[in-house]
Amino acid sequence: MAKELTLRAENYSQWYNELVVKADLAESSAVRGCMVIKPYGYAIWEKMQAELDRMFKETGHVNAYFPLFIPKSFFSKEADHVEGFAKECAVVTHYRLKNSPDGKGVVVDPDAKLEEELIVRPTSETIIWNTYKNWIQSYRDLPILCNQWANVVRWEMRTRLFLRTAEFLWQEGHTAHATKDEALKETEQMVNVYADFAENFMALPVVKGAKSANERFAGALETYTIEALMQDGKALQSGTSHFLGQNFAKAFDVRFATKEGKEDYVWATSWGVSTRLMGALIMAHSDDNGLVLPPKLAPYQVVIVPIYRNDDQLNAINAKVDELIAKLKARGISVKYDNSDNKKPGWKFAEYELKGVPVRLAVGPRDLENGTVEVARRDTLTKQVAQLENIDQYVAELLEEIQTSIYNKAKDFRTEMTTKVDTYDEFKDVLKNKGGFVLAHWDGTPETEQKIKEETKATIRCIPFDGEKEEGACIYTGKPSQQRVLFAIAY
Amino acid sequence: MAKELTLRAENYSQWYNELVVKADLAESSAVRGCMVIKPYGYAIWEKMQAELDRMFKETGHVNAYFPLFIPKSFFSKEADHVEGFAKECAVVTHYRLKNSPDGKGVVVDPDAKLEEELIVRPTSETIIWNTYKNWIQSYRDLPILCNQWANVVRWEMRTRLFLRTAEFLWQEGHTAHATKDEALKETEQMVNVYADFAENFMALPVVKGAKSANERFAGALETYTIEALMQDGKALQSGTSHFLGQNFAKAFDVRFATKEGKEDYVWATSWGVSTRLMGALIMAHSDDNGLVLPPKLAPYQVVIVPIYRNDDQLNAINAKVDELIAKLKARGISVKYDNSDNKKPGWKFAEYELKGVPVRLAVGPRDLENGTVEVARRDTLTKQVAQLENIDQYVAELLEEIQTSIYNKAKDFRTEMTTKVDTYDEFKDVLKNKGGFVLAHWDGTPETEQKIKEETKATIRCIPFDGEKEEGACIYTGKPSQQRVLFAIAY
Repeated sequence: MAKELTLRAENYSQWYNELVVKADLAESSAVRGCMVIKPYGYAIWEKMQAELDRMFKETGHVNAYFPLFIPKSFFSKEADHVEGFAKECAVVTHYRLKNSPDGKGVVVDPDAKLEEELIVRPTSETIIWNTYKNWIQSYRDLPILCNQWANVVRWEMRTRLFLRTAEFLWQEGHTAHATKDEALKETEQMVNVYADFAENFMALPVVKGAKSANERFAGALETYTIEALMQDGKALQSGTSHFLGQNFAKAFDVRFATKEGKEDYVWATSWGVSTRLMGALIMAHSDDNGLVLPPKLAPYQVVIVPIYRNDDQLNAINAKVDELIAKLKARGISVKYDNSDNKKPGWKFAEYELKGVPVRLAVGPRDLENGTVEVARRDTLTKQVAQLENIDQYVAELLEEIQTSIYNKAKDFRTEMTTKVDTYDEFKDVLKNKGGFVLAHWDGTPETEQKIKEETKATIRCIPFDGEKEEGACIYTGKPSQQRVLFAIAY
Repeated sequence: MAKELTLRAENYSQWYNELVVKADLAESSAVRGCMVIKPYGYAIWEKMQAELDRMFKETGHVNAYFPLFIPKSFFSKEADHVEGFAKECAVVTHYRLKNSPDGKGVVVDPDAKLEEELIVRPTSETIIWNTYKNWIQSYRDLPILCNQWANVVRWEMRTRLFLRTAEFLWQEGHTAHATKDEALKETEQMVNVYADFAENFMALPVVKGAKSANERFAGALETYTIEALMQDGKALQSGTSHFLGQNFAKAFDVRFATKEGKEDYVWATSWGVSTRLMGALIMAHSDDNGLVLPPKLAPYQVVIVPIYRNDDQLNAINAKVDELIAKLKARGISVKYDNSDNKKPGWKFAEYELKGVPVRLAVGPRDLENGTVEVARRDTLTKQVAQLENIDQYVAELLEEIQTSIYNKAKDFRTEMTTKVDTYDEFKDVLKNKGGFVLAHWDGTPETEQKIKEETKATIRCIPFDGEKEEGACIYTGKPSQQRVLFAIAY
C-alpha cells in the first residue's frame, strides 16, 4: 500500500496531516496558508452545509451576501473588535497592475492606490452593521435573521489544513433584535443548533457552555461554544455563538423606534462554524487505516466491489449489482460501484477504508450462487455475510447502527478522558500524563486563568451549561468557587 | 404607493436600478462597486444555484474549492490571459495593520509587506492549472471535471447592481481532458446546459453560438455563449463556455502519459455563469409594476392575502388558509401567508406585485361562504375566481402555464426584435430606430468587426450554431460571407 499512514500512537499530528492529503480531502496551495479543498473533501463539506442550512432555515433564518472587502476605518469603530481582528489580515492597497518595464510580467501600478485601504473580511460584523443601519428604523423592522455562507481571511502564521488556514469557508449568522432577552435567546438557540448538528450528524459529542471573558469573541458580551475532544486528548472549539449586546449598534449608530415610542440601540448576535469542522470530523473518529465517516455525512455511504476472474463473471455480477444499487437508492442510500478493471480488489478495499466509506459490499461468483454478499463495516473493520434478498433493509439498519456506534465510541472516549481534579498538582499531572478535559474549580478571575495558561498551556474551554453547582476552592488560588469549569489544552 | 417605479418607456435604466432596490434584491454597499445581495434577491440566486448545481452533477461534475488569492506571477504565464484579466484587479500587498501613532485607528504596517503581491481572483484558470499539475500524471487521471462556486473581483470603473459589479458571485467549471475532441465536446455540452437552464428555468430564450475572435475569453481558442435580449433591445451575454486548447497546460507545464505511451499536454475548458443572470432575469420579464418571476425560480410561488374587517373573520379565514397551505405544500408549491395586521390588502397586493410573486390568492368572508378564492396572475395582472375545492390542482396548472407564458412572451418579443439586414445603412437604421438583434453578413475579419463597433457600438454577439448557410456579402466591406452573424448593442 503506497498510501500507508503514520500511526496515531507514533505521531498524531503527522497522522492527521497525511490523512487529509491521502484521503483526497485537501492540500496546500501555492498561496501560503490557503488550502485547496479537493472534491472528496468538498463533498463532505457540502453535506454539512446542506444540513446546517436546513437547520438555520427551520429556525427562521434567511441567507444574504455582504461584501468581501471592508473599509479599514470600519474596524476602528468597535474598540475590542479592532484589537481582535484587524491586525493580521490581508490588505488591498491597489486596484491595478501594469506591464513591467522589462516587458516580462506585471507590476503594481503606483497610480492606482486606493484612498482608503480595504481589508479582506476576517468576519463581517462591521460591514453588516453598517448595512443594517439602513434597514432598521422601527421595531417593525426587527428581528433581522440573516446568515451568510462565505470565505474569510485571517493571516495566520502557523497553518494546518482545515484546522487553521489563512482563508477558510464558513457561515456567519448576524441577527438584530429589539430586546436584550430576544438576542440572548437567539444566541442560546444557535449554540443548541450547532450542538444538535455536531451530535446527530457529525456523531461528535460536545460540551456546551459559556466562554470566560479571556476567551470571548472580540466585541461580544457573551460567547457560547461547543467544545469537542479529539483522540489525542486535545480540545477543539467547534462552533461559537455570540451575544454582542448593543456594542455594534452603538459603533455604527443603529437605533430604532421601540413599540413604546422611545428610541433604543439594536441588540445583536453573531454565530459561526467553519471548515474547521472538517478537522474535527476527521480527528474525532478516524483510525490508523484512514478516515471513519459517520454515514449521515459520507459522500457515498456504500461502496460495492466486484470480485471476479473473467468477463463472464463480471457481467453476471454487474447485472446483479444493478438491481442491488436500485434497491439501495430507493431507500435514499448513496452508492458507488467500483468495477474499474485497473485496480485489484485488495487495492480498492484499502482505498475505500482510507476514504472512510461506512459500508463496503463485496460480490463474487460464489455470492451469486448462494444469494449472499460480504458486508464490511468501516468503523469496526468487521465483516459478515448477508443475504442479498433483504440487503437494502440490512444496509439501512447497519448505517443507522454505525452512526450511533461512532457517536457512542466518541462519547465513551470523552467520558474516560474527562477528569475531575481538586488540586493544582493533580491538574498538572492529568494534563501531562493523560490529557483530555479537566473539570476543576476556578476563582472566576482572568488573572488566574492567564497564569494557569502560561504555566500549563491549558485554557478554560467553557463554563458548562449543565455543570452542577458545587462549592469548591480554586485549584490555583484556593478562593471559593461555585462550579467546576472545563479546562483543556486546545487546538 | 411609496414604492412606485419609473416607467420603462421613460427611462429603462432608471427603472432597472429602482426595481432592484425597491424589490429588495440588492443594494450598493459602503465599498465602491461591491453590492449587498439582500435576502429576497439571494433566495432567487439560491434557486438558480440549486438547479445549476444539479445539472452540473448530472453531467458528471464535482465541486471543489481553490484559493481566493493568486500570486501575481501566475498571471504572466499565459500571454493573452494577463492582458485580459490581470490589469483591473484588487491587489493585496500587506498582511498586517497596526495602531496608528495618534491612537485613533489603524494603519498599514509597512513591515508587513508581502514578498510577492497577491491578486484577488478575477477568474481561477491560473491557480487551478497550477494545482492540476500535481493531480495529473497519466490518462488514467483524466478527465478532471471540477466546478467551484465562488466570489471573484474585477475592478470595474462603472458598476451596476448585478450587471457589472467589482465583486460578484459565480460558478466556474474547469475541466481537463486527454483529447481535443473530448474537450470540445465538454465545451459544447456546457453551453447547452446553460441554454437549457436559461430557457427552462429562467424562461429566457437564448441564442447559442460561437464568439468571434475579438470577443473571446482571454486565453481561449473558442468561446461559446448564450445571448439573451432585454426589453430595451440590448443584448446580454448570459453564460460562456471556453475551449482553452492546451494554452493553460503549456503555461503551467501540465503533461500526461497518453494511452499510447506518449506524452502530451492536457486539453482544457472553463465555463461560468454569475449573479449577472439575476440582471438578465429581472430585465427580461419585469414590467412597470415590478418584478415578474418565473415560477420555477420564485422564492415563493404563491402569496395568500386575507381580506377581513374583524378578528372573527380573520380567524375563520386563518383556519381555511391553513388547509389550503397544506394542500399546496403537498404538491411542492411554496407559499407565503401574509396575515400581518399592520398593512392593508391594497398595500400587500402592490408589494407582492413589486416582488414578482407569480400567483396571489385573496380570501375574504364571501369566499368562505361560496367556497371560492380570488386568483391573480402576476405576469398578466389578470384575476379570476376559482373554487377552493380543487385549488391546489388549479394553482399547480396555473404555475406551469405562467412559466410557459413568460417564456413565450419573451420569445415573441425576440422574434419581433430580430431583423435581417443586407446593407450597412439598413443596419445603422435598425440599431438607431428599433434596436434588438440584427442578423447580417460579415467578412469574418476582426478589423471589420472593430470598425462596425466603433461606428455603431454594435458588436457581434455570436455566430449562431443554428444559423443557416447562405451566400452573402459583408454589410461593411462587401466581401463574401457564408453565414449571417448576430449583431447587437450589448450590456
